[in-house]
Amino acid sequence: MTARLLLTMGDAAGIGPETIVRAFLAGALDDAVVVGDAAVMRRAARACGAPFLPLAVLQAPSDLHDVPAGALPLVVPPELPTDLAARPFGKVDAGCGRAGWRCIEYAVECWRRDATLALVTAPVHKEALAEAGCPFPGHTEMLQHLAADGGALPPVRMMLANDELRVVLVTIHVALRRAIELLSRESVLETIVIAWQALRRFGLSSPRLAVAGLNPHAGEGGLFGDEELRIIAPAVEAARAQGLDVTGPLAPDTVFMRARRTAARAGEFDAVVAMTHDHGLIPVKYLGVDQGVNLTLGLPFVRCSPDHGTAFDIAGRGIADPASLRSALALARRLADSGPR
Amino acid sequence: MTARLLLTMGDAAGIGPETIVRAFLAGALDDAVVVGDAAVMRRAARACGAPFLPLAVLQAPSDLHDVPAGALPLVVPPELPTDLAARPFGKVDAGCGRAGWRCIEYAVECWRRDATLALVTAPVHKEALAEAGCPFPGHTEMLQHLAADGGALPPVRMMLANDELRVVLVTIHVALRRAIELLSRESVLETIVIAWQALRRFGLSSPRLAVAGLNPHAGEGGLFGDEELRIIAPAVEAARAQGLDVTGPLAPDTVFMRARRTAARAGEFDAVVAMTHDHGLIPVKYLGVDQGVNLTLGLPFVRCSPDHGTAFDIAGRGIADPASLRSALALARRLADSGPR
Repeated sequence: MTARLLLTMGDAAGIGPETIVRAFLAGALDDAVVVGDAAVMRRAARACGAPFLPLAVLQAPSDLHDVPAGALPLVVPPELPTDLAARPFGKVDAGCGRAGWRCIEYAVECWRRDATLALVTAPVHKEALAEAGCPFPGHTEMLQHLAADGGALPPVRMMLANDELRVVLVTIHVALRRAIELLSRESVLETIVIAWQALRRFGLSSPRLAVAGLNPHAGEGGLFGDEELRIIAPAVEAARAQGLDVTGPLAPDTVFMRARRTAARAGEFDAVVAMTHDHGLIPVKYLGVDQGVNLTLGLPFVRCSPDHGTAFDIAGRGIADPASLRSALALARRLADSGPR
Repeated sequence: MTARLLLTMGDAAGIGPETIVRAFLAGALDDAVVVGDAAVMRRAARACGAPFLPLAVLQAPSDLHDVPAGALPLVVPPELPTDLAARPFGKVDAGCGRAGWRCIEYAVECWRRDATLALVTAPVHKEALAEAGCPFPGHTEMLQHLAADGGALPPVRMMLANDELRVVLVTIHVALRRAIELLSRESVLETIVIAWQALRRFGLSSPRLAVAGLNPHAGEGGLFGDEELRIIAPAVEAARAQGLDVTGPLAPDTVFMRARRTAARAGEFDAVVAMTHDHGLIPVKYLGVDQGVNLTLGLPFVRCSPDHGTAFDIAGRGIADPASLRSALALARRLADSGPR
């Protein structure tokens, strides 16, 4: 088997390693190599009731074809902190933060040597990263900087997707007041274009995009705010002028319902561009976080992650549900197959 | 049968009258009297394929017991505009606006003569109201003023409810920027208390309330905005000091999922207090608007309405789904039974 996916272990004190073991035991990692620490993965295997799970530590992901069936393939980044498996589950730890960070750096190094690889990242912990001195609040910013490699930062956007809905966010981890200030015709248009390109890569020949408004009823013609008139509608017009099939701004409270795809009804749109973190994430998460996948759009490589955090409250008990990780692996595989980013 | 519900017909150019006829034909109006225009209701009956539906025009709702089986009982407000049934479907019309407004006024007059009556209101049209010179943007403000009867306005809040979720909103029809400015410890606390009292009236002896934050991750300890620290958390503390079971502020993107009640899982909370119109309405509407009910909390009478508008695009075709109206009738009936407001 050729390695197609690199799967970073995330924060060793969280549920990442366990979800990886459970996904492996379920046969979902055939073409994936874990980037992580061997002792941490062994501890996770014990937590999942598989104390004798063999590990195969590889020199490089390309060695995957040598791994015997039933062994979990692993590449171990140089300069990982020591004694990671001795750190308690469920606690913020600078070493675990550093290790999670280092695995991501190393995964990008592996991608630089083999650009066919796609990344799937198990969750890191924001505070642990900070304690480790990491200058990035999370994966997205870290990957953006690693991808830039000292050059200009590529514009990236977060997409959340599940079976029913795809949402791309204009703003993410900022105060809501600040998110409103950050909206611009350029940032909305850039999001529309990035979302459209992503849907094309998903194999949709004519993506249909909806753009949600910011204000109640999308501003009701200026009565409830003017961002739709000043910013969002002109961005939609500019995108349409480029030939993109974009509708909006639409009322935030009904656009997600209209885009929703179920067995009973086709959605009206293939994705929704949302102005704020919570307008977009509330509907994606409403049905449960287990099925959601987080994608970073705009990077030179595929990057997916499960739509949950480190779940310190249940870490180490072997009960964490790998469903979202498996969805992330499946999507990364599909995107890696569909050619250039 | 004794009249328990007053059902206002809404805007005559919209789907209100049709949904009333369809609910009546389905047997859902046994204890309800329509407040509206006879010709408009006859036109709606024709649109629904029931051209010979008999109407029983009553002097007062208390005459319901005299109505023969199969006749739609109606009270007609004095001073309705004439020729309402000659106005086209699907068009903003000052006369239809005035008629919808007048029916609501008259329903409140009826309630003043018989305080056991509960109100269910079919949708009015904001622009038609404005063309009719109505100083109120919608039902909520109109009912608040009618209930005050010249005195101090009662504090009211909008609740949206469906089978899975109940949401109470701190702010509604204002720009998002303005909604953030309007948040105060007092307005959040008042919303919590109104929501709690409403749940008690619903028959819950120990309501469990969640309060959603405003910012991503409920502010992440002040990193993404300080409204949680300055405003929302102190309001939650004050409510807890009054003995209320209130949790929050919680991350907006996961609190609704946690409150969700399904056959498979009990929700963690009986209602969620949301800071903004769309944080609250996105999850309620996500599963479809047909099942949603809108309640005005804080009035001296019960007031429910369907969770949809006048739907001018399909009005007059007899196809409008009465499901949300029926949900509103059922809820009004239950609340009217449960004693004082």
